[in-house]
Amino acid sequence: MRCEVLAIGTELLLGQVVDTNSAWIGEQLALAGIDSYLQVKVGDNLDRIVTAIREALARSDAVICCGGLGPTQDDITREAIAEVLGVPLDLDPAIASRIEQMFASRRRAMARNNLRQAEVPRGAEVIPQVQGTAPGLICRLGDRSIYAVPGVPREMREMIQRAVIPDLIAQAGEPATIHSRTLRTWGLSESGVAELLADRLTALDAEANGPTIAFLASGIEGIKVRITAKAATGAEADAMLAKEEQAVRELLGTAVFGADEVGMEGAVGELLLAAGLTLGLAESLTGGLVGSRVSSVPGASEWFRGSIVAYASDVKRKLLGVTDGPVVSEVAAREMAAGAAAALNADVGLALTGVAGPTEQEGQPVGTVWVGLAIDGTSHAQQLPMFGGADRDQIRQMSTISALDFLRRRLLERGEA
Amino acid sequence: MRCEVLAIGTELLLGQVVDTNSAWIGEQLALAGIDSYLQVKVGDNLDRIVTAIREALARSDAVICCGGLGPTQDDITREAIAEVLGVPLDLDPAIASRIEQMFASRRRAMARNNLRQAEVPRGAEVIPQVQGTAPGLICRLGDRSIYAVPGVPREMREMIQRAVIPDLIAQAGEPATIHSRTLRTWGLSESGVAELLADRLTALDAEANGPTIAFLASGIEGIKVRITAKAATGAEADAMLAKEEQAVRELLGTAVFGADEVGMEGAVGELLLAAGLTLGLAESLTGGLVGSRVSSVPGASEWFRGSIVAYASDVKRKLLGVTDGPVVSEVAAREMAAGAAAALNADVGLALTGVAGPTEQEGQPVGTVWVGLAIDGTSHAQQLPMFGGADRDQIRQMSTISALDFLRRRLLERGEA
Repeated sequence: MRCEVLAIGTELLLGQVVDTNSAWIGEQLALAGIDSYLQVKVGDNLDRIVTAIREALARSDAVICCGGLGPTQDDITREAIAEVLGVPLDLDPAIASRIEQMFASRRRAMARNNLRQAEVPRGAEVIPQVQGTAPGLICRLGDRSIYAVPGVPREMREMIQRAVIPDLIAQAGEPATIHSRTLRTWGLSESGVAELLADRLTALDAEANGPTIAFLASGIEGIKVRITAKAATGAEADAMLAKEEQAVRELLGTAVFGADEVGMEGAVGELLLAAGLTLGLAESLTGGLVGSRVSSVPGASEWFRGSIVAYASDVKRKLLGVTDGPVVSEVAAREMAAGAAAALNADVGLALTGVAGPTEQEGQPVGTVWVGLAIDGTSHAQQLPMFGGADRDQIRQMSTISALDFLRRRLLERGEA
Repeated sequence: MRCEVLAIGTELLLGQVVDTNSAWIGEQLALAGIDSYLQVKVGDNLDRIVTAIREALARSDAVICCGGLGPTQDDITREAIAEVLGVPLDLDPAIASRIEQMFASRRRAMARNNLRQAEVPRGAEVIPQVQGTAPGLICRLGDRSIYAVPGVPREMREMIQRAVIPDLIAQAGEPATIHSRTLRTWGLSESGVAELLADRLTALDAEANGPTIAFLASGIEGIKVRITAKAATGAEADAMLAKEEQAVRELLGTAVFGADEVGMEGAVGELLLAAGLTLGLAESLTGGLVGSRVSSVPGASEWFRGSIVAYASDVKRKLLGVTDGPVVSEVAAREMAAGAAAALNADVGLALTGVAGPTEQEGQPVGTVWVGLAIDGTSHAQQLPMFGGADRDQIRQMSTISALDFLRRRLLERGEA
């Protein structure tokens, strides 16, 4: 079973919106054991959408069209599918009524163009909308399938999970299952990871149906190592994955900070929770980025007290007790960490101070960043490594994850001591 | 002149990395007046990459291959291009030497697989690397061109601007120029925007070579309205854009908060700077998100003092002077705003308090969010509208942009008064 993804919208080609939907659908297809070898973006042009759907169906068993189902004049996915199928569009009175009711219940006037969303290619099965106003579509052309889902991510995700994946699995008969696990590392280069895993890769190459390993530089988020296993059942695939994960973890050591969706902030949160410690932050150049990542973890209130974003230097002195002298320095980083722990009544204080640019500060070049940590009654600080030519955003992002990694490694050492 | 983009990497199809490169390249092509009607993602499979390049060249004059130039075994873009061209790969001694020097200068041992990056399809022109280790490629097949650039965004962007776009323009002769401007709105629905602009759209449809207008729901970032003009020269396109922008702005009013890359935080910063006011924040459920957005604006230190992220309730009382009583309330939002202005010595205090979930707080349901504003000696607060079913991340993002918009509208009124 092969299924392609066709993301529709001129805004995607012009780069005004990044197509995150295809990536998400690709992951769902892989998890369902459905091959997806090609994903295409096309603009809001009837002929080109029609051609793209036909080409996809020539290569694959199915295509998921994503986007172009909205109420406006440039939403023409319905028309394109009808042309591929060679059928007219009919107004579905049940959908039209549902759209009218939705607007009425929200006490909003309905713009008439919303009723375009009630048009359905004749013979298509409707995926009823439970969010938003545009329904999805399931259409057959011989033994091939065309799916259409809205481009709004929430609505798309709900329909893919509820209707499209189950239909694809039903069409496919009994698929093999692909499971994968991604180990996330920080502090190694891509080629460094490759060298550490070289022998393991050679060994896997010799196995006919064994798991595969791929690396992936995720820029600011470190290097990801993906292990993929294909088997007849989910249980077999999971067993293969677990065995290989253990082998890879032994080779990469503490560079592995998490798996799959666990980000650095989640890894730090788990360690703090296990140690029964609370965290207070002092931020400067990151402006709240560390706090926003840390507080994105559900349940963070168990261990996160807050953050003092001291963007102006005098705020560092007034609220964090930073003494006279340069604020981009080892001393200031230590004082900020201790000051954050005290002001926020936290067990651990973590601080960042540095120069994100665009101009230098206190004679320190752009990219100079200190992390400070106050824990167990002492404080220490370290200058963070920064790659040359990093821009303001990269410096802020790198500082954030590096500071959290600094805390993570300290908590790991502390746990072992 | 038509140019497609081929993003290469299994991680893109599996959704482990979102392909942001194609979007960025698409924007550069549009700005250069080069049509890009299709963008394709393909995995690290030699046959499928070869087929994808051939199909792209059958439809378009050029294809930009992005990714798969790294040092590891799954980087096979060089091999695929050589196969399409029907030539062997040669090791380029100059590139090899440069890679070795780069590692030596960083005092790092070079993994031998890095030398794969010095292999070049015979006859190809090399785009020298100035960052990273992988050079780019320019190859001709008859009157068609194949470009290859690394998948690392920084390296890719540099090579596209320095070498690929200039070569494409040279190959194209005199291209038409496409310029576009995106007006960003907050507070209107997509169909609401469509209704406001309906007459204007009808008028433009009647013009043969006039600008075009498209809308775009950007989820959490409001509705974008894109105006695109195609003309023989950049000056003509700009004149068309300026005229149309004025017409659209008159129809949409204060819902327009910025254009193109100006986000809500940039719009607020401009207004604060113009009014000579400084800003202090008090955040709770957003955990630093407002501060991180505000401080992402270069030069924010002119008007941004800092933020007190009071995640724990007792921190709200201690550092912001919030009195006894519920912390998710109109009173607490006002007290937090005033407390932030006082503690951070800022002219304006902006505060957010609410329930991001996953569970309710103080008997208030998930999604209950108050924004408070202290300005000109008074404070007021308002409950933010939240769409039903919003998840934790959406509530935090919506709260952030809504709070900044609340301040923006107040500053606009204040400026008119």
